[in-house]
Amino acid sequence: MARTVSDTQAPVRLGMVGGGEGAFIGAVHRMAARLDGQFQLVAGALSSDPARARASGQALGLAEDRIYDDFTAMAEAEAARPDGIEAVSIVTPNHMHAAPAQAFLARGIHVICDKPMAATPGQAQAMAQAAAGSDALFILTHNYTAYPMIRAARSMIAEGKLGQLRVVQVEYAQDWLTEAADFKQAAWRTDPARAGAGAIGDIGTHAFNLLEFVTGLQIESLAAELHSFVPGRAVDDNAHVMLRLQQGARGQLWASQVAVGRENGLRLRLHGDKGGLEWDQEEPDRLWFTRFGEPRRLLTRNGAGMPEPLQPLTRIPAGHPEGYLEGFANLYTEAARAIRAHGTGGSQAQTLLPTIEDGRRGMAFIAACQTSSAQDAAWVSLDP
Amino acid sequence: MARTVSDTQAPVRLGMVGGGEGAFIGAVHRMAARLDGQFQLVAGALSSDPARARASGQALGLAEDRIYDDFTAMAEAEAARPDGIEAVSIVTPNHMHAAPAQAFLARGIHVICDKPMAATPGQAQAMAQAAAGSDALFILTHNYTAYPMIRAARSMIAEGKLGQLRVVQVEYAQDWLTEAADFKQAAWRTDPARAGAGAIGDIGTHAFNLLEFVTGLQIESLAAELHSFVPGRAVDDNAHVMLRLQQGARGQLWASQVAVGRENGLRLRLHGDKGGLEWDQEEPDRLWFTRFGEPRRLLTRNGAGMPEPLQPLTRIPAGHPEGYLEGFANLYTEAARAIRAHGTGGSQAQTLLPTIEDGRRGMAFIAACQTSSAQDAAWVSLDP
Amino acid sequence: MARTVSDTQAPVRLGMVGGGEGAFIGAVHRMAARLDGQFQLVAGALSSDPARARASGQALGLAEDRIYDDFTAMAEAEAARPDGIEAVSIVTPNHMHAAPAQAFLARGIHVICDKPMAATPGQAQAMAQAAAGSDALFILTHNYTAYPMIRAARSMIAEGKLGQLRVVQVEYAQDWLTEAADFKQAAWRTDPARAGAGAIGDIGTHAFNLLEFVTGLQIESLAAELHSFVPGRAVDDNAHVMLRLQQGARGQLWASQVAVGRENGLRLRLHGDKGGLEWDQEEPDRLWFTRFGEPRRLLTRNGAGMPEPLQPLTRIPAGHPEGYLEGFANLYTEAARAIRAHGTGGSQAQTLLPTIEDGRRGMAFIAACQTSSAQDAAWVSLDP
Amino acid sequence: MARTVSDTQAPVRLGMVGGGEGAFIGAVHRMAARLDGQFQLVAGALSSDPARARASGQALGLAEDRIYDDFTAMAEAEAARPDGIEAVSIVTPNHMHAAPAQAFLARGIHVICDKPMAATPGQAQAMAQAAAGSDALFILTHNYTAYPMIRAARSMIAEGKLGQLRVVQVEYAQDWLTEAADFKQAAWRTDPARAGAGAIGDIGTHAFNLLEFVTGLQIESLAAELHSFVPGRAVDDNAHVMLRLQQGARGQLWASQVAVGRENGLRLRLHGDKGGLEWDQEEPDRLWFTRFGEPRRLLTRNGAGMPEPLQPLTRIPAGHPEGYLEGFANLYTEAARAIRAHGTGGSQAQTLLPTIEDGRRGMAFIAACQTSSAQDAAWVSLDP
Repeated sequence: MARTVSDTQAPVRLGMVGGGEGAFIGAVHRMAARLDGQFQLVAGALSSDPARARASGQALGLAEDRIYDDFTAMAEAEAARPDGIEAVSIVTPNHMHAAPAQAFLARGIHVICDKPMAATPGQAQAMAQAAAGSDALFILTHNYTAYPMIRAARSMIAEGKLGQLRVVQVEYAQDWLTEAADFKQAAWRTDPARAGAGAIGDIGTHAFNLLEFVTGLQIESLAAELHSFVPGRAVDDNAHVMLRLQQGARGQLWASQVAVGRENGLRLRLHGDKGGLEWDQEEPDRLWFTRFGEPRRLLTRNGAGMPEPLQPLTRIPAGHPEGYLEGFANLYTEAARAIRAHGTGGSQAQTLLPTIEDGRRGMAFIAACQTSSAQDAAWVSLDP
Repeated sequence: MARTVSDTQAPVRLGMVGGGEGAFIGAVHRMAARLDGQFQLVAGALSSDPARARASGQALGLAEDRIYDDFTAMAEAEAARPDGIEAVSIVTPNHMHAAPAQAFLARGIHVICDKPMAATPGQAQAMAQAAAGSDALFILTHNYTAYPMIRAARSMIAEGKLGQLRVVQVEYAQDWLTEAADFKQAAWRTDPARAGAGAIGDIGTHAFNLLEFVTGLQIESLAAELHSFVPGRAVDDNAHVMLRLQQGARGQLWASQVAVGRENGLRLRLHGDKGGLEWDQEEPDRLWFTRFGEPRRLLTRNGAGMPEPLQPLTRIPAGHPEGYLEGFANLYTEAARAIRAHGTGGSQAQTLLPTIEDGRRGMAFIAACQTSSAQDAAWVSLDP
Repeated sequence: MARTVSDTQAPVRLGMVGGGEGAFIGAVHRMAARLDGQFQLVAGALSSDPARARASGQALGLAEDRIYDDFTAMAEAEAARPDGIEAVSIVTPNHMHAAPAQAFLARGIHVICDKPMAATPGQAQAMAQAAAGSDALFILTHNYTAYPMIRAARSMIAEGKLGQLRVVQVEYAQDWLTEAADFKQAAWRTDPARAGAGAIGDIGTHAFNLLEFVTGLQIESLAAELHSFVPGRAVDDNAHVMLRLQQGARGQLWASQVAVGRENGLRLRLHGDKGGLEWDQEEPDRLWFTRFGEPRRLLTRNGAGMPEPLQPLTRIPAGHPEGYLEGFANLYTEAARAIRAHGTGGSQAQTLLPTIEDGRRGMAFIAACQTSSAQDAAWVSLDP
Repeated sequence: MARTVSDTQAPVRLGMVGGGEGAFIGAVHRMAARLDGQFQLVAGALSSDPARARASGQALGLAEDRIYDDFTAMAEAEAARPDGIEAVSIVTPNHMHAAPAQAFLARGIHVICDKPMAATPGQAQAMAQAAAGSDALFILTHNYTAYPMIRAARSMIAEGKLGQLRVVQVEYAQDWLTEAADFKQAAWRTDPARAGAGAIGDIGTHAFNLLEFVTGLQIESLAAELHSFVPGRAVDDNAHVMLRLQQGARGQLWASQVAVGRENGLRLRLHGDKGGLEWDQEEPDRLWFTRFGEPRRLLTRNGAGMPEPLQPLTRIPAGHPEGYLEGFANLYTEAARAIRAHGTGGSQAQTLLPTIEDGRRGMAFIAACQTSSAQDAAWVSLDP
């Protein structure tokens, strides 16, 4: 049974697991939660190191009795408080997602979990079971799905503006792991035990998820070559994948963390028999749209000619750039709405929030790529 | 005397004048104040219409007794509370900046004021006197000065990377007032009584301020032609200005709200005898830098080769876009630091926060443009 | 009386004055004449230095008896030959345009003359008289007018797609004269006696001419500040000009040869009450078009949705870039057509080829800028 | 034995097979041959239709006795003339390359042949034998290799500026065959008998050739999926290929003629362990270069900081765009030099001109892609 949620517009009471001082993604989650004023961070197990957990909690202004160094203790204590957290953000390394997710779900506390869902299929399955057995929501932060122009692209495709999709090209290229690195962010992401996979997991799953989200088509099978270029690296740092999608569409996916010159280059190019779309995460407010036989159009967030339904996802007028944090905040604000609606019978299925099923599917994608690559890029099915 | 400020990292207690439901810039100030968690909005005189003031305050979760419909009452009540506001954001139309600024400054409450400072030079002068007579800070939200790449540009120029500046081109072009408009945002901005000026005030002052901020050079004189293209419009909607700056630099400034095809196109192009810089607000994370005789370089926020000192102004890695709200939030977060430092002897002069003097200078710029334009674009001095 | 011209499609017989080895613009004229096979270079007075004239002529494969070191001798000899040249290209420095133009026009030989027309108004007037007294054509190579997308822009404006023009911004920015230079191309261009003016003449006239060509509006008056930044330079290297055009349009023009980071940046931005256009010479196949209230469209040469009438100006499909030489060649190929048509009664007025009047107007523009600048940027009329 | 070639700088005497009225690529070859004045077209078998051959030859100003309707007759007659052609351009559909190539090579006339070399491996082999048995040159017009910035990229890689290459991404995307088409250009290109392959042959071979040319690395094996999206189309119109290159590099290639929104999008992205390069054919004068850990640099043709050796490949200063025809002309002008050098002992191997071996390799690439695709994208070796 889920906890009683606020029935007013008071901020949702939020806890966090992971995200202590120096962490990247934890700070992002906090800013995303804060931007629209829909959450208030009130508790945290921010580190498994007690001293660091305490220092981090104090810096964030948490009450002393709600700073925990053990997420199980936190789950128990918060579940027992009348003013306990309604939701928890899990922002630990991949291999540390499953246990806290189970602990909070079991107590009816909504889980907002970073991606990929887990480091192993076994962990993912355990999480899925926990979610199935709980009334609480499980939201996976595939944040790129919440960019306004991505939502616009999804709507346009659903409305048939591209016609039948034929060719889809998706890539996610970075260069920050071009050389061997041992700083914190790099260390766990290149450790098979903690990350489960390399580029294909850390960013490939984003590309995979975004492609399916935008096109509405599932990938049916794939042929992948994962490669590790940096000497001594134990996980892949480059992935080339060929895709066969529903309805006969074909595609290529490229994920790389050794593409010198690229910062955070997540790009989609989608071509149907009536039109085409191009989008680049580094210019997220822009979407190129071409109707076959007509000049290219540059659509912009809140720009001239854009449909109204995107308005709830944006905050400021066209030409005033919104970025990564605003996109991430869209997910949190939708989560707040879903959490409130949940108390009155709403279902996550009525939202576009990524689910446990998206998480499972991302894990299946990683596994399929690894299987294919081990078999010399043989085609591997990705069950629906 | 200024009020006692928090000596912990607790959020600064903030009030707001203006910014009721439907307002654009008020919501921006609130998001900017919220993003880094350095402020908590606890009081507001959000509208002069009591019903709207109340509804707006409730929607924002303000306590009933801190929702005011009169800023004077708010200033008095908050000054008297032990937990009263430490700072107030003034986000009313231009002609309504002076009175509340005076009211709060007189009570030692720090003022964060939207730009331009006022609708008339007289109002501006009254505000300057009030600021001079108060120990409280007066911060003008020329938000574009707080973009990380703008700060980078300023540093590079100060370090001599462009050599002696020669030619500066600045423009701020929009198209949202291409046709006569009577919706709220447009209505007061095209009313001489409430706005004081048209494009030259609303956006020209941003361009002017940003140019002086980045170059470190003052404009000594100018020749301007203000024009109103839309039938029936009582203020300028296009401004062309020639500039003579310190050290012999020359420039052009263009501000327009009728430039069809432009959304929020604030651009700087700066050319010295050793190098050049280009920046466009619609791609704020990018800065083009050319050393004479070398290829153009594309510098990016947190990107390879960027200096460390910008780090406090940014939140996320390169390639993860930050935008307008993050730039605006930089100003608020710096304001929070200044407010805390103020309690322990710090001075606004130790920061880069725009001051009452920037406000006065912006008003002088508007007046000089209007005078020049009335004299057929004669050169008019802009006293230092 | 004009010489008899080819009545077949045989190439037009062409001579050249100037353009010896090492010259920039002479080689450009030759490539432009050659690209479409409509001209054959058969004679030349390529240098006033006899040895260089001979070597240059031989390198180009001219017959020995048609290599001249004196343009007057060339005019006489060619006029007397039954296979004499039909047209001559004059590609000398500005102060050496008038004399050869007069010599060839007087003998009915068509003149294709580089811009600006002359170094002084007196020279320009003499040329105009010579043209008026001759039946031969006088074509000024304002080559940028012949880019396909510029012709498209002109047509769109003529058809009313921008509505009433309001604001026009034109600039031509280069950086190659950022430092004092004494190589050949720089030497005469910075010599008042040979060039007549600096940036305002060398590139400002291009910007001026292109603006009037595209908009169909004449500049009625202007206020200019010419400046010379490089120590020791005797001509302007930067020009800022405010413009008042017919029908109440307003504009700014910027010409600079000291804009570090800019290579050959001729740009037009045109805003009417119904739409806007943007064009950049460095991406000449692209034209941004915005209808007010609709997304921006990126029109391309031969691209989807472009009108047919541009076809004669292009050679290859969309996406296969055409550049500066193709644009210049368009002028030459139109000149060949005009020369042939002239033999059968056609008039230059039926073409879009720049005329002696364009040349005169360009000289008037230079003079007006110099006059205005000398009077502290006072407004100066530019008679129609 | 090759025919005696000009020992002066007189234009090389050129014939053409194919390229009659309405043809695209024939006209391109003629403009490319003409631009630098190094060739003179004097003979042609421009069509197999006698009337069209005659009309086309007349329109081009060929002498009546050198207009042929049969390339064999042309080869014989021209070989017998003292002023016969020195070289012939073959611009027929792919299946009609082999026979004329054999006919001219057998008579010692140099062959400049459009790509891909042939429609079948058998034809290609016959051509290779003919070339081996002839002293004449065989030059394949992989024109994109002659863009100046492509040559710059090749040099930079050879000099080690990217370090060890790791990941290469190459694509060639167009949209002109998005729908079934029966106009001339489309008809033969989608006919298996005449073209031999679809997108993979028409544009995929360009991408393949360019990748190997620039990187200096051969593709060792590939896995391909060719697809035909347009109903009724008998050849592939989209190709996805995974690549394994020498020295352990990995890559993806994409060729498509149904990518709505793309005009002629040939792009290279090359990433080594020290640096990266990006190039787009639609902006051919630009090359992005990143040294790992430094800001991106935008190199331009003849721009600041570019090396001198590229000068022979360019005609005009930076910022004056050169395009497709200039790149193609570079190949022709290099061919003229090679033809002249050949007469004095020079060898094609001393040039960068694409050879019969490039042609053979392109055919092997097509065949490997077709084989792989027929085997469900199994890896297929591409012998060196």
